[in-house]
Amino acid sequence: MRKMRRKGLASMAVQTVATAKNVDLGPASALSCRECGERFELGPIFACELCFGPLEIAYDLPVGDPEGLRKRIEAGPANIWRYAPLLPVPEDVAGKPNLNPGWTKLVQADNLARELGVEPGKLFVKDDSGNPTHSFKDRVVAQALEAARAFGFTTLSCSSTGNLAGAVGAAAARAGFRSCVFIPHDLEQGKVVMAAVYGGDLVGIEGTYDDVNRFCSELIGDPLGEGWGFVNVNLRPYYAEGSKTLAYEICEQLGWRLPDQLVIPIASGSQLTKIDKGLQELIKLGLVEDKPYKIFGAQAEGCSPVSAAFKAGHDVVRPQKPNTIAKSLAIGNPADGPYVLDIARRTGGAVEDVDDAQVVDAIKLLARTEGIFAETAGGVTVGVTKKLIEAGALDPSLTTVVLNTGDGLKTLDAVAPTTGPTATIRPSLDAFRDAGLA
Amino acid sequence: MRKMRRKGLASMAVQTVATAKNVDLGPASALSCRECGERFELGPIFACELCFGPLEIAYDLPVGDPEGLRKRIEAGPANIWRYAPLLPVPEDVAGKPNLNPGWTKLVQADNLARELGVEPGKLFVKDDSGNPTHSFKDRVVAQALEAARAFGFTTLSCSSTGNLAGAVGAAAARAGFRSCVFIPHDLEQGKVVMAAVYGGDLVGIEGTYDDVNRFCSELIGDPLGEGWGFVNVNLRPYYAEGSKTLAYEICEQLGWRLPDQLVIPIASGSQLTKIDKGLQELIKLGLVEDKPYKIFGAQAEGCSPVSAAFKAGHDVVRPQKPNTIAKSLAIGNPADGPYVLDIARRTGGAVEDVDDAQVVDAIKLLARTEGIFAETAGGVTVGVTKKLIEAGALDPSLTTVVLNTGDGLKTLDAVAPTTGPTATIRPSLDAFRDAGLA
Repeated sequence: MRKMRRKGLASMAVQTVATAKNVDLGPASALSCRECGERFELGPIFACELCFGPLEIAYDLPVGDPEGLRKRIEAGPANIWRYAPLLPVPEDVAGKPNLNPGWTKLVQADNLARELGVEPGKLFVKDDSGNPTHSFKDRVVAQALEAARAFGFTTLSCSSTGNLAGAVGAAAARAGFRSCVFIPHDLEQGKVVMAAVYGGDLVGIEGTYDDVNRFCSELIGDPLGEGWGFVNVNLRPYYAEGSKTLAYEICEQLGWRLPDQLVIPIASGSQLTKIDKGLQELIKLGLVEDKPYKIFGAQAEGCSPVSAAFKAGHDVVRPQKPNTIAKSLAIGNPADGPYVLDIARRTGGAVEDVDDAQVVDAIKLLARTEGIFAETAGGVTVGVTKKLIEAGALDPSLTTVVLNTGDGLKTLDAVAPTTGPTATIRPSLDAFRDAGLA
Repeated sequence: MRKMRRKGLASMAVQTVATAKNVDLGPASALSCRECGERFELGPIFACELCFGPLEIAYDLPVGDPEGLRKRIEAGPANIWRYAPLLPVPEDVAGKPNLNPGWTKLVQADNLARELGVEPGKLFVKDDSGNPTHSFKDRVVAQALEAARAFGFTTLSCSSTGNLAGAVGAAAARAGFRSCVFIPHDLEQGKVVMAAVYGGDLVGIEGTYDDVNRFCSELIGDPLGEGWGFVNVNLRPYYAEGSKTLAYEICEQLGWRLPDQLVIPIASGSQLTKIDKGLQELIKLGLVEDKPYKIFGAQAEGCSPVSAAFKAGHDVVRPQKPNTIAKSLAIGNPADGPYVLDIARRTGGAVEDVDDAQVVDAIKLLARTEGIFAETAGGVTVGVTKKLIEAGALDPSLTTVVLNTGDGLKTLDAVAPTTGPTATIRPSLDAFRDAGLA
């Protein structure tokens, strides 16, 4: 990863098509290195020139008038742009063409609570399958899109094996960008259709997902990629901020209150770290009362490098070769793994994993209790929640929010082998009576 | 149809488990025959005892204080229950466990408008793929569920080939009802999974969809079906009212204004008639200014009995055997066909159809212009809109709303054969350059 970043960084300096001087990204004031704190002008760069640490957005946040800010947010649109004053986007973002994701349902999951032994009224599912392309990726892509607009990019791109491809293709279509998305050539047809239907260019790469990523890094450093915004590479600092909106929404939907416990899936780990950042911002802005909260990370056993490091007490994450049905979480070398470990330990949370069978069971559990059909990543968080409660690590008497980041329609294969009709009968009352279902 | 209704009616009189005396369904005051006007107490009946006409809900609507009503609605939840004062549901419905569908996006479709030659800012897509199970069926099932609760039913049921099965299964799960859904035994595995994953009973019937329907009619008349609410049979009058919420939302999202033209898909025709009913109610209540609007019905050529009748100037609809990829619209003998004809003619609209190739083209057109991946029914409405504009039947200078009632993820097969990668290449810059996509 480090090597790729260095290379990307060096080349991006040449490619910057706009700088802070003519860029309006609202309260975003600079890029700041997460490791050494060095600051850079806003631009399509993602790694520190000094220490190669990841860059993130620094803000001039509207502190000092929490009541005014809260009213402004509540009067805003029913999507992520209600939080525009806290995001790297121009003030008039809500009027620009994009998919307007967010403000998804926070479901009070009383049936699931009963099954898991959680106190009634204390368990919530933040259901991001309600986003326009049915995954949380719409949140992050919407941010990257605004950055791409600000920097004068005309093509939106990414490497992807699924959700991200659709989110980029759809967002580019709405916003009038060209899109060019790279995928491994042997993806299932369903995923290819979801990525291709929005009419952008879709390029199958003969190789693995790692090959696709390596190719994209090369492309960013080449004149061929000029004018291209790779949402999860050269626009990553902006892109990643989209996950903060999950924190904002959860707290606002709880009545401007911090939850006590959150269970969040880990792919690269970025989402978890940004949710923590969002919660901290709400505290600093006075929008919620400051109080402790615990963050729990969830992985699939077949790709559990962060969980393994947490349990072993390590500060670094040893890469794994993924082998799990939770493909949207299958990042064997998660860039933000160490930060996730920090957060889980600092907040008194944990990182846990469940095996594929538990993932499938959890998808079905959530579906039959709450009518929410989650993708495998949702099975991971629900499964981990169950496991953490059983182990006594998660307190069932406290307000707990579990994230479902995607839609079961996209990972039908996970449940198909074990999900079918109760009975098949002739169309007669006798046959129905014999089936014993009346 | 008539024969089935008669049979259902006779048997339902025995089965009624609650009557108007102890039923609280808010402003719903009675059932009223659409043909002869005879009124009946609220109950799980669906056909007139006198003339066998369809029953619909009569209301005591809150007339006389439009400003107060508007404020009450605007202060309500971001789902269909903001309109509870206009629906057959108890006043406290928003606090009861259900999927809380609705308040889906009304997308200003400027890119699509440009392609279709519609004036900028005048074309909108009401995108019901944002509902919990990603189709408009969540709206109608939510109403049926409240009626089922009011009548003391404990099992929610339906016959279905797709969207409805998932909507019923999910709603029953959330609300703590048992569900038992009937499908043809030879459905595609994907649809079976979507219907079965919510954990209710799913029964495959050896036969066609017509056989499934006939079996359900028998079951309603048999003690085996006691305590069962069939959302689209004995709860149909309540169920159908859910479509009114599309009219309410469209007008509120336009700033409490009637659109000039609406393009609505026709399956049974119920949705179109209820949207008209909803618009009329808003006028009567003084929530929108009274002005003319035109309603256009959309069918697939392979199942276009209403379109054929409209074009031939007939008042009755001759049944067809469906043969189209738009399976969610494939009702060859649409119960509300004659009412649809009335409305199209009364409002100065029309009924039109497009062939399967045009449906596929329209799905792709909507996806590449607006980033909305519609199911085949959405391809039908967009395709019909294009055709009507080209024919001069739909005025491109007026405010037009096109409905997308479902999600492309559920009908991937429709676009899969013609949707794929632009190119497949080796992971090298040279190969990418050669592909001519930079």
